Amino acid sequence: MPATNTTSSIEQIARVLDAIRARHPLVHCMTNEVVKDITANVLLAIGASPAMVEHAGEAAGFAAIADALLINVGTLDDAQIHAMRHAIPACARAGKPWVFDPVAVGPLGVRTRFAREILPLRPAIIRGNASEIISLAGQTGQGRGPDSGDSPEHALDAAAQLVSQTGATLLVTGAVDYALDATRTLSCSNGHPLLTRVTGVGCAQGALAAACAAVTPDRLHAAAAAAAIMAIAGDLAAARAPHPGSFRVALLDELDRLDAATLRRHAKIASKPA
Amino acid sequence: MPATNTTSSIEQIARVLDAIRARHPLVHCMTNEVVKDITANVLLAIGASPAMVEHAGEAAGFAAIADALLINVGTLDDAQIHAMRHAIPACARAGKPWVFDPVAVGPLGVRTRFAREILPLRPAIIRGNASEIISLAGQTGQGRGPDSGDSPEHALDAAAQLVSQTGATLLVTGAVDYALDATRTLSCSNGHPLLTRVTGVGCAQGALAAACAAVTPDRLHAAAAAAAIMAIAGDLAAARAPHPGSFRVALLDELDRLDAATLRRHAKIASKPA
Amino acid sequence: MPATNTTSSIEQIARVLDAIRARHPLVHCMTNEVVKDITANVLLAIGASPAMVEHAGEAAGFAAIADALLINVGTLDDAQIHAMRHAIPACARAGKPWVFDPVAVGPLGVRTRFAREILPLRPAIIRGNASEIISLAGQTGQGRGPDSGDSPEHALDAAAQLVSQTGATLLVTGAVDYALDATRTLSCSNGHPLLTRVTGVGCAQGALAAACAAVTPDRLHAAAAAAAIMAIAGDLAAARAPHPGSFRVALLDELDRLDAATLRRHAKIASKPA
Repeated sequence: MPATNTTSSIEQIARVLDAIRARHPLVHCMTNEVVKDITANVLLAIGASPAMVEHAGEAAGFAAIADALLINVGTLDDAQIHAMRHAIPACARAGKPWVFDPVAVGPLGVRTRFAREILPLRPAIIRGNASEIISLAGQTGQGRGPDSGDSPEHALDAAAQLVSQTGATLLVTGAVDYALDATRTLSCSNGHPLLTRVTGVGCAQGALAAACAAVTPDRLHAAAAAAAIMAIAGDLAAARAPHPGSFRVALLDELDRLDAATLRRHAKIASKPA
Repeated sequence: MPATNTTSSIEQIARVLDAIRARHPLVHCMTNEVVKDITANVLLAIGASPAMVEHAGEAAGFAAIADALLINVGTLDDAQIHAMRHAIPACARAGKPWVFDPVAVGPLGVRTRFAREILPLRPAIIRGNASEIISLAGQTGQGRGPDSGDSPEHALDAAAQLVSQTGATLLVTGAVDYALDATRTLSCSNGHPLLTRVTGVGCAQGALAAACAAVTPDRLHAAAAAAAIMAIAGDLAAARAPHPGSFRVALLDELDRLDAATLRRHAKIASKPA
Repeated sequence: MPATNTTSSIEQIARVLDAIRARHPLVHCMTNEVVKDITANVLLAIGASPAMVEHAGEAAGFAAIADALLINVGTLDDAQIHAMRHAIPACARAGKPWVFDPVAVGPLGVRTRFAREILPLRPAIIRGNASEIISLAGQTGQGRGPDSGDSPEHALDAAAQLVSQTGATLLVTGAVDYALDATRTLSCSNGHPLLTRVTGVGCAQGALAAACAAVTPDRLHAAAAAAAIMAIAGDLAAARAPHPGSFRVALLDELDRLDAATLRRHAKIASKPA
């Protein structure tokens, strides 16, 4: 692919970051119980505004008020399923994007059936690791829980199938992250293994994707921005904090410090035809 | 107001801090799912003892054992509402204070109705941002969720109305915090914007207010102490940790280090007739 | 007792650590709402893989997939009780160990009744502070919630009774931690008071015990390893981080850095006949 195309993608991603900083999108997070703290702190660090509203009597109303909705099924319970069934259509009716993070879909039945139920409700972005994406597409993955047993490259066919089936942009995460829609694939080669040694970073990236989708209708670059922002902040944090406790602290600091110039300098984005 | 009055208020606040350190009050926290970790860690850092007990079959019994109760409606579900209905009267019967934090009351219906239901149950302190206080008083605020769209000064009339209506001491938080009862208003001008960039600091301040109310019957200075302790620790933390990840860490360290002498040296407390 | 015996115990503990690092056991954590973040981060820091799966429709299936199960009753609700009733027998049927952490059992009725219900289901390890162990054995403890009012030495008779009654290995925590089974008692004198100033460290130690039990059938040294690993990491962290915010960060870093050589150098393990 021509270099100009990639340069243009990095520029689009930088604009997403600037737009978050300028507009402070309000992100309605319906997410799992393990990651609410880090999810909220990642959104605050990048300049977005988090809100966790999960009562079925409030979730639909709030989904229409917020700028984007995150649906993460990591610790589903029946009340949350009920509230999500109200919130997703309300979000869609209000013309706001919702992001779907199918945590541990595949080996676990309740969330897998619920994932299939909501998949037709037109998520803007689906974010998952390779095993989750493969399972969500109805194929057989290697995951044993929240961790992936597959590489992201092996999930690209399943991801393309989900693009075609749902109309969503896909964000497949791993050592390299991939954002793809019906015509384009972007890869982001930034990132550090320490990102997988802190609980909730992946889930928080899903919330970040919702913040990005709130500020641009360009879903591909919203997804790529979520990948690049987290991965570059991770690279910068790992350079000075080589252990997971201090890395988590440094990651939040680097998300706060990240500006468009730093992003342009560090981004390793490649483009190829889908 | 005479300066002696303010000096006296700072002295009362310092005594609240010393009493927490001496008595380690046990604070029963019924609070939202996002902030339980930071709430417990703030209480531990200041010398109090946190306990989160939320089952309806245990909450009433525990409210009578604990030294104070926090009711925070940030992520209400039906089971929590049920348990709170048991815990608040049990706390009141045992002669212990309870603190009410009406998170995001106003735009969200379930919590707003529940807030109106429990308001007559004589909270010792009501802590909220301007939009929450305005909404709780039945007026129309600008909040879109947990963040305030109003300044605390605009909420002082609503706060005075709630004082009159409920008998509670009010703590209205913002760039300046205000503690007020039927006859007095204290302002605290300490605090740093980074306090709003870490999730749960405001909610943890509500728990801190419960710890303060556990050690003194002087509700006004309990509320002002919660404001001053968090704000001064925030000032000291921000001076050496200018980004939110490390600021959160430094805030907990400064709460642990804070002593009465440091509090007296830094407190910016002003007094005016209500 | 001969020194060779203690040297052998330290060597067994070091092997447990090496086995966790080599095998990355998947630990199914059904635990309380306050500590999920630190529990997951402690497991990740030591090299294990955490997963929190709590829906009754998924918990049994996942307990059979995972390498060990943690049952912590710190914030029980009815749905969690229901899911635990499915998960524990499934774990046992699959031949995997489960660890029981009876948080605040004694003064609180729902969890105390549930603890008595599941006690016959053959936990591999029971971990608790002195008041919890005394209460679980049916005696009268001094606890007022998650904190112990008793010293671990006063709980050793109750612990021995629970060993005899349940077949479990007991881990009694306090200023000194004790691991005991029917024939042996090991004490670990490492540890620092700051470990009690950070919420969830004790609960995370229960998860660590599950990770240890996943990699060895030697329950006594699994329990002693959980005690020694957390306590030694705490000693090392406290030496450079004397306040609780930075101590929590340093603790996770030291868990990541801890190797068998460091463990051998610092471990204060003593052995005596049971």
